[in-house]
Amino acid sequence: VSGNSKTADVRLYIALVHHPVVNKDGNIIASAVTNLDLHDIARAARTYGVRGFFVVTPLEDQKELVNKILEHWLTGHGSTYNPTRGEALGLVKVVSTLEAAIEAIEQEETVRPAVVATSSRGHRQTVSYQRMRQKLDSGHPFLLLFGTAWGLARTAITTADHVLDPVIGPTDYNHLSVRAAAGIILDRLLGQ
Amino acid sequence: VSGNSKTADVRLYIALVHHPVVNKDGNIIASAVTNLDLHDIARAARTYGVRGFFVVTPLEDQKELVNKILEHWLTGHGSTYNPTRGEALGLVKVVSTLEAAIEAIEQEETVRPAVVATSSRGHRQTVSYQRMRQKLDSGHPFLLLFGTAWGLARTAITTADHVLDPVIGPTDYNHLSVRAAAGIILDRLLGQ
Repeated sequence: VSGNSKTADVRLYIALVHHPVVNKDGNIIASAVTNLDLHDIARAARTYGVRGFFVVTPLEDQKELVNKILEHWLTGHGSTYNPTRGEALGLVKVVSTLEAAIEAIEQEETVRPAVVATSSRGHRQTVSYQRMRQKLDSGHPFLLLFGTAWGLARTAITTADHVLDPVIGPTDYNHLSVRAAAGIILDRLLGQ
Repeated sequence: VSGNSKTADVRLYIALVHHPVVNKDGNIIASAVTNLDLHDIARAARTYGVRGFFVVTPLEDQKELVNKILEHWLTGHGSTYNPTRGEALGLVKVVSTLEAAIEAIEQEETVRPAVVATSSRGHRQTVSYQRMRQKLDSGHPFLLLFGTAWGLARTAITTADHVLDPVIGPTDYNHLSVRAAAGIILDRLLGQ
């Protein structure tokens, strides 16, 4: 097992992408935000020391929905009912496009992050979890993309700098929820 | 990394426990069933070759709710809309008590399973993931317990045969969702 003993050296960001993703028929869509995606993935991100969690959606009503959820847990009733939830959701920023997430990280880190797509399907050149841990240990900032609906659109995958190995179990069933996949992938990359 | 190359040898069952669990104040309650818990954990269970997924609740209305959800995805509209969902939810059985789950496994496997509790808190004697992989490789049946709400009640933990190490990231934040924790734990026990 390689490094990651010092979280401070790892500069990992994640994005939950609602556009461009594909639907059941393979067409590009903007998917709706699922409340529990925000909670579950923010909690995993906070657990594993992720620096920021971008929710990517171009839809104004969906951005408003996310901001209402954040407000409830960060400053509203939820913040006193369960403060640990706000601690996790405090990582969330809503942006309209993937490029906006990349630019926000560039401003924060003063260097453009490398983009890593995830996919449940095999692609020609994928990076192993061990290799990605080594890359993270270099201290360079990375942005890890998770697709909602039926997954990231091909353009989001082909324009990424790397594609991570799919999460495969010992069976031929390959349909994890994005909430479970995000947790498993963060554990593989940053778990002890 | 130890074994598990042949799923057929591993006889792992899981239970999502809604009673006895504790609430925010540490009191024992019966929690409500969350629809996405069933989907996410069933999909992870199917991915990793788990033999059965018991939803434990003593509440009649909650049992009915689970059975309605199962019906929708196994034989109703959902079964044609997304057949892979039914393939996962086909693992689910609803039972009133943990003992009923244990007995159902005993009938299936002709030997009583060893019970393994999970907890986000440390306990005196916990078993590592590597050690548990070895135990699973022995071919003996195991039942892995996941608690809803604020976690399994102390009685469910102290009466278990083993308690698994908590899932800890490189931070002090220790509040994963049960959906993410179940995925991560199955990956650590059965992932390649």
